Amino acid sequence: MGTAKLIGIDWGTTSFRAALMDGDGGIIDRRASGDGLLSVTDRDFEGVLERAIAGWDAAATLPVTASGMVTSRTGWVETPYLPCPAGADDLAGALTRLTTAGGRRVALITGLSYRNPDGTPDVMRGEETQIAGLALAGKRLAVMPGTHSKWVRIDSGRITAFRSAMTGDAFAALRDHTVLKLTTADRVEAPGAFAAGVAVGSAEGGAGLLGKLFRQRAGSLMGDFPASETAERLSGLMIGTEIAEARSFAPDVGGPVVIVGGEALAARYAAALDVLGIAHETAPADAAFAGQYRIAKAAGLV
Amino acid sequence: MGTAKLIGIDWGTTSFRAALMDGDGGIIDRRASGDGLLSVTDRDFEGVLERAIAGWDAAATLPVTASGMVTSRTGWVETPYLPCPAGADDLAGALTRLTTAGGRRVALITGLSYRNPDGTPDVMRGEETQIAGLALAGKRLAVMPGTHSKWVRIDSGRITAFRSAMTGDAFAALRDHTVLKLTTADRVEAPGAFAAGVAVGSAEGGAGLLGKLFRQRAGSLMGDFPASETAERLSGLMIGTEIAEARSFAPDVGGPVVIVGGEALAARYAAALDVLGIAHETAPADAAFAGQYRIAKAAGLV
Repeated sequence: MGTAKLIGIDWGTTSFRAALMDGDGGIIDRRASGDGLLSVTDRDFEGVLERAIAGWDAAATLPVTASGMVTSRTGWVETPYLPCPAGADDLAGALTRLTTAGGRRVALITGLSYRNPDGTPDVMRGEETQIAGLALAGKRLAVMPGTHSKWVRIDSGRITAFRSAMTGDAFAALRDHTVLKLTTADRVEAPGAFAAGVAVGSAEGGAGLLGKLFRQRAGSLMGDFPASETAERLSGLMIGTEIAEARSFAPDVGGPVVIVGGEALAARYAAALDVLGIAHETAPADAAFAGQYRIAKAAGLV
Repeated sequence: MGTAKLIGIDWGTTSFRAALMDGDGGIIDRRASGDGLLSVTDRDFEGVLERAIAGWDAAATLPVTASGMVTSRTGWVETPYLPCPAGADDLAGALTRLTTAGGRRVALITGLSYRNPDGTPDVMRGEETQIAGLALAGKRLAVMPGTHSKWVRIDSGRITAFRSAMTGDAFAALRDHTVLKLTTADRVEAPGAFAAGVAVGSAEGGAGLLGKLFRQRAGSLMGDFPASETAERLSGLMIGTEIAEARSFAPDVGGPVVIVGGEALAARYAAALDVLGIAHETAPADAAFAGQYRIAKAAGLV
């Protein structure tokens, strides 16, 4: 490892991750905590940041890059979305810079917006930095599973279009706050049930979701499957639906789908793609910090 | 009005409605309360029933018919679903009869099940009695809006097939327990926003719901529409999606769609069907009691 040259911050609503990087983007040290934006009181972003990286750079001479919801309305500084297409160079050109009371230089990486052909908009904050970190060649399709999953079309490393799906957010709400909660309480691991849910969700091009949701309840009432499988079936149903929706969004992109995300969720999406016979590969971890390094370099910060 | 001959009970999870009827099905008196099945303690269904109809029939000589969730697992007696096709005569032949400790004869009307061509099941409890009460001639399609909406194919008064949609249940969960709750707090009446939501939901044959849900959030973030419209847009999106799903279920049924339900929800569905240019008519109120009378008559109870 070389000398420390950059501090990268991935700051979300409920999580905080930081990396101390050298001049080649190598990670010297890292920190992670639950100090997400929701836990910041009195807008003391600087205080939370400095406590989180204490010991790395007492003189506050290293530049900091930050991405994620930290640039949203509930974050440190709300920055306007950058329209697609955009890659690391565009993000470097759109940095919002501030200097804290303690003299630390912080460069905030903004999110992206996209207008669908029908005029409806989509937005992301944080994922653009992960995609920049992957530095993918050619035309590719990436899926970024999560509360609000993203399907991202990439051309030579630049994001040309993307579509969000409210999969994780809707899954939790439906599991915990509809009639399905009656049978998701005593849940079991059930890969077969998950696979069955994926197949149902992806049928009819992902249409019919409101009916399919009710039939998860009806199937359990009619004894077609054990009630304890409901949560796994519901998870498969939602992810299968999301994948079917994405097919209409990106029918033309060849090559394996790149799965970008945490280990458990990435494995679940890999299993779902296997059910549907769709080739996939999993991106290396730390894409966010790799992206921050790439953007910092393009901006001349390192 | 003639002499009292029958007491009809529509007993749901959170509501209780009763009607005292004469020998022609005319309603002499009625009661309604929040004494739904959830409020029954120690399984004292008889006690709740007798208190609710106190003064109508002290000698307990009138027969009682009951429909709704009262025959579900959480009800008085769990009765097996009757498979489709089924009408008033079939329901009369499948009554579950009991006599209470106080000597009152109660006839429970069971619900229906339906197997889709792909083998997946659907169920209803209570709606079958309402449809029996409408006594519709010919081939018709009815929509019964609610927590779990039903689309019902009817041939000469008998239900031949039906499909549920988790519209109301999912709407409430999504509005109150996802990121959309951030902008549904200060909701306004917005018929234009509702209509726009219906159009979006019904597009692509109802497919793409997970993406459309997220774009309700993105549209508000991008300033495409006021955040206060989110709840109305979401309501339209869900109902528009449900209607599009129903079209694939019943593409061949002519004549206006019959809307069966409470006034406010029926008006909302009428507005949605207007947006989509689908002819409709609203069923008379009290279909449940009319159905109970018809079934009681077919069973020789009156």
